[in-house]
Amino acid sequence: MGGTNIRTAAVSKNGEVLLVLRAPARAKGTAAETVANISTQVLALQDAARRKGLGRALAIGVAVPGPLNVRTGVVYAAPHVKAWRSFTLRRNLERVLKRTVIVENDANAWTLGEYWRGAARGCKNVVLLTLGTGIGGGLIVDGKLVHGRSGMAAELGHVCVEAEGMLCDCGARGCLEAYASASGLCGLLKQRLHVEESELPPRYLDRGGEFSARGLTRAARGSDTLAIEMFEVAGRYLGIAIASFINTFNPEKVVIGGGVAGALSLMRRAMMREVKARAFAAAVAQTRVVKAALGPEGGVVGAAFAAMNTPMKAR
Amino acid sequence: MGGTNIRTAAVSKNGEVLLVLRAPARAKGTAAETVANISTQVLALQDAARRKGLGRALAIGVAVPGPLNVRTGVVYAAPHVKAWRSFTLRRNLERVLKRTVIVENDANAWTLGEYWRGAARGCKNVVLLTLGTGIGGGLIVDGKLVHGRSGMAAELGHVCVEAEGMLCDCGARGCLEAYASASGLCGLLKQRLHVEESELPPRYLDRGGEFSARGLTRAARGSDTLAIEMFEVAGRYLGIAIASFINTFNPEKVVIGGGVAGALSLMRRAMMREVKARAFAAAVAQTRVVKAALGPEGGVVGAAFAAMNTPMKAR
Repeated sequence: MGGTNIRTAAVSKNGEVLLVLRAPARAKGTAAETVANISTQVLALQDAARRKGLGRALAIGVAVPGPLNVRTGVVYAAPHVKAWRSFTLRRNLERVLKRTVIVENDANAWTLGEYWRGAARGCKNVVLLTLGTGIGGGLIVDGKLVHGRSGMAAELGHVCVEAEGMLCDCGARGCLEAYASASGLCGLLKQRLHVEESELPPRYLDRGGEFSARGLTRAARGSDTLAIEMFEVAGRYLGIAIASFINTFNPEKVVIGGGVAGALSLMRRAMMREVKARAFAAAVAQTRVVKAALGPEGGVVGAAFAAMNTPMKAR
Repeated sequence: MGGTNIRTAAVSKNGEVLLVLRAPARAKGTAAETVANISTQVLALQDAARRKGLGRALAIGVAVPGPLNVRTGVVYAAPHVKAWRSFTLRRNLERVLKRTVIVENDANAWTLGEYWRGAARGCKNVVLLTLGTGIGGGLIVDGKLVHGRSGMAAELGHVCVEAEGMLCDCGARGCLEAYASASGLCGLLKQRLHVEESELPPRYLDRGGEFSARGLTRAARGSDTLAIEMFEVAGRYLGIAIASFINTFNPEKVVIGGGVAGALSLMRRAMMREVKARAFAAAVAQTRVVKAALGPEGGVVGAAFAAMNTPMKAR
């Protein structure tokens, strides 16, 4: 579930996506309405799967846009779903679906997806960054997803890359998210032009008249020097963060996904300059920084993996 | 083994230190000489243990001051032992001792020590920082030490806390080590006073006329405003790094050891201000930042733990 859409997918034991449904998320509804909305989609998918002769679901996993406790199934808070504040999502879903449900943070789920079927296949140590409106993160250490004490680990968009830097949406200064996310790029551009978002030049906006990473990417590819510069700044801070992650995790892969990753080639030079200047050379030599292989299905594939691989006793 | 001394200890199955020997490390010798020196100490300890009726060693673990591959037992490079460059330390020790040996990085070993018998007992997710001449780190995630792909993980002194900050001994700018280690504090003081190390005021020096964290701590406790300010700067950057670690690991404990940790009370206010301003409140509420409980024995206790808990097949 995202802030806009719910994507429901039937995923085979091997990680193939057999069937996908999409519906509006209605994320502004009450908690009960969101539960009803998700459940309806799951049931609709089950019906569709049965009609196609795909059989019954073995396990149900839900990828959620917010930090949560995987053990208790409680969502602490979801920026796009206001009704979810310390919300017992899993139990509510289980009550309606009359089935065991696994909930996982969406960036964590995507990480599992890339690990199972995507860019991080065969790796034991993986750092994933999703550069979207904000920045989500996921970590695999020695073949296992990192949850921390209660599921709040891997908030990699909120590591500090500039002590007194740009203000982040989280309230802190100089987070990676304040530079290398769509909202960070928008902030950099506003600061550089001394304007409000509504006053940004149309060449950086999408059709709806709003700033988007896609608009800025298009401008940069069209040789707009300011757009190019913005991606260099973002790439530089992305490189600073990745260098710290390499020194912290000695990973095989750093996987970059999300809308801003479409501009990875525009950021790569500045990014790799910082990585090489800051991380230990022997560790850098063992790490590949790559684009995510799965598209919007990354989350559902990973949620399926989590659901299939969580032992019953831990549920 | 450190840069100055070799400490050899007999540790019981429960983690009690039964017997300790100390000898000069002779770290400047050839690789063969360092191996002979360590082996001699191990054999001397075994003799002493036998005379005391403590029996024979079940396992031998060595804590090494440098990054290494725990699987192969190769030390990549040790700043204080110049002869160790891609050195097959484990096999060389095993040849002399005619026994299986486990090697582990010293900060990792200390982390295991704190986890087993110290400040992190009962925790599943731990971040350890050793604030000495440099800064070492250790990570426990879900009850297991983090090695990364080849043992170079947890170089936590080399996460960036200030993009264009102080130059670190590693060659990068703005590493945590450049602020919150003894050498970092020395660099801050030199920069502030515009002097070389030899010109630092005697009140910051030890008896040998060299800068030491202890000298600076003594001056700060004696109300020296500059010394107090230096610890506030170090505390601030320590807090910035710890905030990032909390957002990354959602740990139960952050454990601070090493000589500079003696001044933790002088750094704590600035440190916690940054932690609270930058890390997610729900995660901060679950984390305690504490001093290490084990003294210089932390490393040997952890090396013993590693030796006892490494399955034979992985050796």
